[in-house]
Amino acid sequence: MRRFKLAVCQMIVTDDKKKNIEKAEQMIKTASREGADLVILPEMFNCPYLNSFFPLFAESFPNGETVQMLSKVAEEEKIYLIGGSIPEKDGEDIYNTSFVFDREGKVIGKHRKIHLFDVDLDTGLSFHESDTLSSGSSLTVVDTELCRVGVAICYDMRFPELFRLYALKEADMIVVPGAFNMTTGPAHWEALLRIRAVDNQVYMVGASPARDYSAGYVAYGNSLVVEPWGNLIAKADESETIIYADIDLDRINKVRNELPLLKHLRTDLYEIRQKGLSK
Amino acid sequence: MRRFKLAVCQMIVTDDKKKNIEKAEQMIKTASREGADLVILPEMFNCPYLNSFFPLFAESFPNGETVQMLSKVAEEEKIYLIGGSIPEKDGEDIYNTSFVFDREGKVIGKHRKIHLFDVDLDTGLSFHESDTLSSGSSLTVVDTELCRVGVAICYDMRFPELFRLYALKEADMIVVPGAFNMTTGPAHWEALLRIRAVDNQVYMVGASPARDYSAGYVAYGNSLVVEPWGNLIAKADESETIIYADIDLDRINKVRNELPLLKHLRTDLYEIRQKGLSK
Repeated sequence: MRRFKLAVCQMIVTDDKKKNIEKAEQMIKTASREGADLVILPEMFNCPYLNSFFPLFAESFPNGETVQMLSKVAEEEKIYLIGGSIPEKDGEDIYNTSFVFDREGKVIGKHRKIHLFDVDLDTGLSFHESDTLSSGSSLTVVDTELCRVGVAICYDMRFPELFRLYALKEADMIVVPGAFNMTTGPAHWEALLRIRAVDNQVYMVGASPARDYSAGYVAYGNSLVVEPWGNLIAKADESETIIYADIDLDRINKVRNELPLLKHLRTDLYEIRQKGLSK
Repeated sequence: MRRFKLAVCQMIVTDDKKKNIEKAEQMIKTASREGADLVILPEMFNCPYLNSFFPLFAESFPNGETVQMLSKVAEEEKIYLIGGSIPEKDGEDIYNTSFVFDREGKVIGKHRKIHLFDVDLDTGLSFHESDTLSSGSSLTVVDTELCRVGVAICYDMRFPELFRLYALKEADMIVVPGAFNMTTGPAHWEALLRIRAVDNQVYMVGASPARDYSAGYVAYGNSLVVEPWGNLIAKADESETIIYADIDLDRINKVRNELPLLKHLRTDLYEIRQKGLSK
């Protein structure tokens, strides 16, 4: 399939896990019935983005209620589903994990956030994910019948190496569930998504929770989809909403024929190598 | 020195080499007298950006008239000077080369454009630098008393690997003489400069020729200076002009303390390696 429609569900996340799961399910169904073949949820869509909540809301795979719902709805709607991310419990560890489902509801990919968000911004915002979370150690590229998708989560987007490696692994699209905040969001969110698309000549999708000023951590919103030349083809504002984008995979080849960046890499002078055991 | 002032001379380039050299000299002197300690010229400031002109205007180092002028004016004004770029003849080869001068007029750095601009844009713009030019094979980081400067030329900016390597070599600032055009300029120039600054938490300087609609290749203009958080601190429009920026090296440390990107690199999972013989 060279063309398909995707949807990003920019939902408000509350401190009621059950309500978050219900809201996600409703929005996925709405998106599917609008014709989306791939539906994407935001980072930590079932849990407030706060260290105090991650251990409380964490669940184990495959029996956790969130993954169960995602699997069920993907199968019912016969869609591909990238389940934003949730706190995933594995033994003593908790990860910030994105599960990817096929049309039968089967998990075909799982990305554990590689780069933990440990920062102390000048505006007073401090966050130390590593207080409660462990980091993943695998790159995640998933084959679907729609396209090949790389998955990264939020702060992972800060590291161009990861996106180049995904492009070299022939990802057509990179999906980034991410909850940038009111400092980093206005400063960097859109420009980062645009230039990762431009550098690697892929589709980029940023999926944020909706903005909620009453939350302990205020997400920026502004979910968006960028095509391989860097143009925005869908963009949310800050409110709870679903955005849709028509993806045309031929656009990737067209842009790469015009500006053959990947062919012009000077691998005689530099090279990004993947290391470790990750696939 | 933790603070200094730089200038970018966004000059109009004509098909009269002598006039180009005179114009550059005037603008450098003006910038110096306004207090700039580092003056930067655009890509191909002495030569129209066209393959038909490169062989005609090319000159050898160190006796070419352009380099002689640059050396003399750097010494007279006691400034650091990054001489944009010029077509440099070396045996049978011609390179797109940037010469860097210290306050005594001595050449302390030389960057030959690594990535040649060979593209066929949808708008009808085709350019094949490799028809006349050879590519460089060295990374260029120069120590000055002001700061450590990386140099890249125009299309080099498309490759994030190069900028990461410069940051890892502890460059404080990366200077990019570049003549983006009226297709790539509006689409990518500012966002690329901003995100290279944001990713690597360095100062970025883009130095373009002024826009001249009568030229065979119309440069975008919009020279600009970005600080390490991604804010523009100086920006030209399209006209012939000099822009100035106050550089504060402590800003680099401040941003890196807030958002420790270089410390958070997962070098256990990926690594950019420099290869080949370049320093």
